[in-house]
Amino acid sequence: MKPKLAIVKIGGNVIENKTELAKFLSSFSLMAEPKILVHGGGKLATELGKKLGIASKMVGGRRITDAQSLELITMVYAGLANKNIVAQLQAKHCNAIGLSGADGNSIQAHKRPVKEIDFGFVGDIDGVNEETISNLLKVGFVPVFCAMSHDGKGQLLNTNADTIASEIAIGMSNEYETTLYYCFEKKGVLLDVENDDSVVKHINSETYQELLEKKIIADGMLPKMHNCFHALNNNVQKVCIGDVSMLATKSTLFTTLTL
Amino acid sequence: MKPKLAIVKIGGNVIENKTELAKFLSSFSLMAEPKILVHGGGKLATELGKKLGIASKMVGGRRITDAQSLELITMVYAGLANKNIVAQLQAKHCNAIGLSGADGNSIQAHKRPVKEIDFGFVGDIDGVNEETISNLLKVGFVPVFCAMSHDGKGQLLNTNADTIASEIAIGMSNEYETTLYYCFEKKGVLLDVENDDSVVKHINSETYQELLEKKIIADGMLPKMHNCFHALNNNVQKVCIGDVSMLATKSTLFTTLTL
Repeated sequence: MKPKLAIVKIGGNVIENKTELAKFLSSFSLMAEPKILVHGGGKLATELGKKLGIASKMVGGRRITDAQSLELITMVYAGLANKNIVAQLQAKHCNAIGLSGADGNSIQAHKRPVKEIDFGFVGDIDGVNEETISNLLKVGFVPVFCAMSHDGKGQLLNTNADTIASEIAIGMSNEYETTLYYCFEKKGVLLDVENDDSVVKHINSETYQELLEKKIIADGMLPKMHNCFHALNNNVQKVCIGDVSMLATKSTLFTTLTL
Repeated sequence: MKPKLAIVKIGGNVIENKTELAKFLSSFSLMAEPKILVHGGGKLATELGKKLGIASKMVGGRRITDAQSLELITMVYAGLANKNIVAQLQAKHCNAIGLSGADGNSIQAHKRPVKEIDFGFVGDIDGVNEETISNLLKVGFVPVFCAMSHDGKGQLLNTNADTIASEIAIGMSNEYETTLYYCFEKKGVLLDVENDDSVVKHINSETYQELLEKKIIADGMLPKMHNCFHALNNNVQKVCIGDVSMLATKSTLFTTLTL
């Protein structure tokens, strides 16, 4: 039987809120199985940009990562956010080690080709280095990934944290029985967006289609759910979506997704 | 016989200059033995501070690391500088992994006690985690440390890069035959500061005393040399001081220090 591995992605709202972050890190550090944390930087990079007079560039509603934005992201995601998370986890006796996709060549990507929009320094993932991650896990480290990849030619790239989490989970599924956790501000996938307690407890491929047809899954949840089923279709055992309390041992309400 | 290990510290002037940095990283990646890189961030943090309207605080000629300065350092040293170095080394097929002292609990320190001056978030090193560093070396990683430590209670701390390099070299000397390289803008310790080629090729404990008495070693070189002999007195085999060309196989002029 394969050993278990949890891959936990925390949303920007958790990163931005010191109290929520501390609560999350306590729960995360108590998880018994081998685990990996994935984070972005939420609005922290945009806020630093504002102070420096660097505006977020948007084209057709999509964010563009120009050279200045990439610098901001590298400073905030890989520096400020990542190292503070690592230091706090170490204080909770969790042997965290912070990484970007360049470290140990752990996440290889290529710059997104320019079609209608030039997204700038955005990386589409080519592969996850199982050997690097596995070597770190085997000696007891808890890898903490920020949302950055690299192209192997010296260029760092901005990559969506949800995608990094699912690709790591997929990549590690050869060796581990993986569960992917998406931890955000809601208790899970909601039947009624107005009612925070209307959590759909379980979704499988069949009910997923129904929820899509009924337009219960829409807007921002669409790419998230697509990511989840992409992971499930590529050997990830289970995906869980919920708020910080999902990780606690006696947690209650959240959404579980299986094939 | 112990395996060899090189600990290389690069100065701020190398970090600040893209051409010099690329040249250095080429030489560093070609070093055959297991190796560790240590860097600060040079003037990059001060420059970012200026753009953000955060002035460097000095008391009695000494720099103070207040909370804002610590954020700058975390962003620039652990983020921008560290990750760009790692990505560039990866492009040269050197399996770099970037670390602060919090990562893997690798460098433990305590906040410098307040006496006449409150230095702020500055860490005095308590110990280097040989196990963490050794585990990384054994699976073929090349650790790249930025000049930061942590107190184990969740607090990151600013620590002098020269000191981090010497403490790592000392810590790893139980298991490895260590050589410590200080790579800066000069060719070595100079007999005449006006003459860049007046390099003292070899210094030992005896000639060190002579150079001190003759005031040939003075000013900024004093703490550097003190660091070197502290390392040599604590089982580091050899210390080399010179410019980037020191690391190349056919290098010529630099200063070697032994007991």
